[in-house]
Amino acid sequence: MKKENCIVAQSGGPTAAINASLAGVIDGVRKSGSFTRIYGSLHGITGVLENNMMDMSLMALSHFPMLNTLELTPAMYLGSCRYKLPDYTEDPAPYKQIFERFEEYGISAFFYIGGNDSMDTVLKLSNYAKSIQSDVKIIGVPKTIDNDLFATDHTPGFGSAAKYVASTVLEIAHDAYIYKIPAVIIIEIMGRDAGWLTASSALARTTYSQAPDLIYLPEVAFSKEQFLADVKDKLTKQKTVIVAVSEGIHDADGNYISSDSAVADKFGHAQLSGAGKALEYLVRDEIGVKVRSIELNVLQRCAGHIASRTDITESFSLGQAAVKYAAEGKTGIMAAIERISNDPYQWVIKSADVADIANEAKSVPVEWINEAGNDVTDEMIDYLRPLIIGEVSLQYKDGLPVYLPVDHLLH
Amino acid sequence: MKKENCIVAQSGGPTAAINASLAGVIDGVRKSGSFTRIYGSLHGITGVLENNMMDMSLMALSHFPMLNTLELTPAMYLGSCRYKLPDYTEDPAPYKQIFERFEEYGISAFFYIGGNDSMDTVLKLSNYAKSIQSDVKIIGVPKTIDNDLFATDHTPGFGSAAKYVASTVLEIAHDAYIYKIPAVIIIEIMGRDAGWLTASSALARTTYSQAPDLIYLPEVAFSKEQFLADVKDKLTKQKTVIVAVSEGIHDADGNYISSDSAVADKFGHAQLSGAGKALEYLVRDEIGVKVRSIELNVLQRCAGHIASRTDITESFSLGQAAVKYAAEGKTGIMAAIERISNDPYQWVIKSADVADIANEAKSVPVEWINEAGNDVTDEMIDYLRPLIIGEVSLQYKDGLPVYLPVDHLLH
Repeated sequence: MKKENCIVAQSGGPTAAINASLAGVIDGVRKSGSFTRIYGSLHGITGVLENNMMDMSLMALSHFPMLNTLELTPAMYLGSCRYKLPDYTEDPAPYKQIFERFEEYGISAFFYIGGNDSMDTVLKLSNYAKSIQSDVKIIGVPKTIDNDLFATDHTPGFGSAAKYVASTVLEIAHDAYIYKIPAVIIIEIMGRDAGWLTASSALARTTYSQAPDLIYLPEVAFSKEQFLADVKDKLTKQKTVIVAVSEGIHDADGNYISSDSAVADKFGHAQLSGAGKALEYLVRDEIGVKVRSIELNVLQRCAGHIASRTDITESFSLGQAAVKYAAEGKTGIMAAIERISNDPYQWVIKSADVADIANEAKSVPVEWINEAGNDVTDEMIDYLRPLIIGEVSLQYKDGLPVYLPVDHLLH
Repeated sequence: MKKENCIVAQSGGPTAAINASLAGVIDGVRKSGSFTRIYGSLHGITGVLENNMMDMSLMALSHFPMLNTLELTPAMYLGSCRYKLPDYTEDPAPYKQIFERFEEYGISAFFYIGGNDSMDTVLKLSNYAKSIQSDVKIIGVPKTIDNDLFATDHTPGFGSAAKYVASTVLEIAHDAYIYKIPAVIIIEIMGRDAGWLTASSALARTTYSQAPDLIYLPEVAFSKEQFLADVKDKLTKQKTVIVAVSEGIHDADGNYISSDSAVADKFGHAQLSGAGKALEYLVRDEIGVKVRSIELNVLQRCAGHIASRTDITESFSLGQAAVKYAAEGKTGIMAAIERISNDPYQWVIKSADVADIANEAKSVPVEWINEAGNDVTDEMIDYLRPLIIGEVSLQYKDGLPVYLPVDHLLH
């Protein structure tokens, strides 16, 4: 079979924008004319291994009406996996299987939308391809709400998660301000190793509300004593103190704050409480004011109804660019965003060597955290602000957001 | 001073629509021409007691530009309180104080927006007014996300909370379906005594997703054994089981499921885990599949960005009607909604005797719960559906929803 088809797959954790990149790849295929068919591999690279693929060529037809619905559908239309390829010099079996499948389906390009781990797959597959003189192009498209990928100014999915976090913190502030008694609200935000998403809570600040009053990122060693002093100090000036805290905060020895507050249930099993819950208990026991912790949980990565238009547009464009790069003969690269300016916000897409990205995590730079380690700087806010701008025009039916059906993932 | 002014106040827990009722009262005052000034009592009736009031007459001027922003601002613009008036035959002091304040401000009508407890205040104040031959009109406007007030078909604030719950459950389902391994997701929803809001999770069902697969309300005695059997049965047919559970589920003896799973922290303090967390541990220990619990927490009552247009419109209209009732000389009543039909959805506003409402809670009728006690009936869904229809046209600035500033509540 003549090599003229391509495969796209998704991997890692969900975001509100990863299907926008999928829609971008499909649109790129439609416009490029370089591919006859496009297949979606279900559950990441495991779909290639297990021959679990769906023909998506219909979606690449001109003006496929549902592409806009796919663009705005949260989580992963093609499903996900947490599969790590072995080193091919030690275990070439899965590589042989994958490239045999590529041959079988006439594949000349494989697009993988994902985070650090997925870029590891892109790197390994492209290296293996070189080693066997295969001309299949292996291209990565970034995504992660954690915003921790190198070589790209920021990651698709992050802006939508940041918009959810900021909007939600503002709404929680309105909810909290109504009572007269002193209260502390602790909001736990995703990001085990990188504090980007927790930092984005600072975007909730308005002319009338300074919430969150305190922000703790995993990039700074967390001190319970300092935290209690910070909260007490705020309580001398205001009745409501709203704290944003990363799930990954840890002390100077690297111990998660959550695990230090391990609780045991009635069967004696250790239960790991999250950082927010641990700090709730700490404030209750040590300060004694009314306190509530709120874990934003998976909602921050799947709330398609409040996605950032900027994020969706960028994610779509990166998918389109990946197809262009493949058509140009590139491989072992990831489509990435380069920021030209903050105000006006301008960006371009570039190609980045995936070897510089795979398996590495980009932390928040220390100069974007204040000296006290309990807030972020204006430079951080200037960086974050453009990413949450704009709203999506979601359709609603019977009061519910309209998303693309995912029946194929249910069994 | 001639009696020609009025006071409005808010009490109880926040909702996304209680400020719509406040905007409705203000608009009613503007249109009626019956009042010269309108005062907002801060923190419910305690603002009257403590002379902590703001003059809102400016907002009642023709075409005050921010009334629409107030309508869509979540939580309570005037702040809240949890104050219960004593029996006036035993302790008339606060009543005297309140009616002296009414005299001082030239008040002829007091509008109280709230739930069961607030209607208790309306009842007591109107009874006291009669006892002293005062002609101050005391009018209630309902609100509660719990939907547990008698004499009204449903309560303002409930529809918006239900829309948030349904949309969020659908998005969580998209998030959950992406993996291939079996998993159970437990979503804990507000409603300690009444299951209306948990029932509204059923509105998340679409042509492709039947989530939530199981629904447990506090109106049915909860059996852990039956719950485990239900989940196991679902897991034989599908890989992802999504469960909606009320925070108030309890066993046949009335013990909350949460308290039965009390955990102790390292200091030996008893920690009450919520119902969702308790069931998460139960599934993990007894079934052993991947399991996650998600507490929707305060977001379900303060997410103004996904309010129901139907709910906001009704809440506004009830506020307007309250003013009309006062002008007509009514007192000791609450503006209420009467449903004419489900399809097309039609409703009218009526006046209800507050004595029939105060301190009573309306449960979900047993005939709207299925026989197995793990789902709701089609009649329930037909009742709920119209309440979440329609979206609000919220303004955004710098990526954030624009709400009315609440500086006055901050100190």
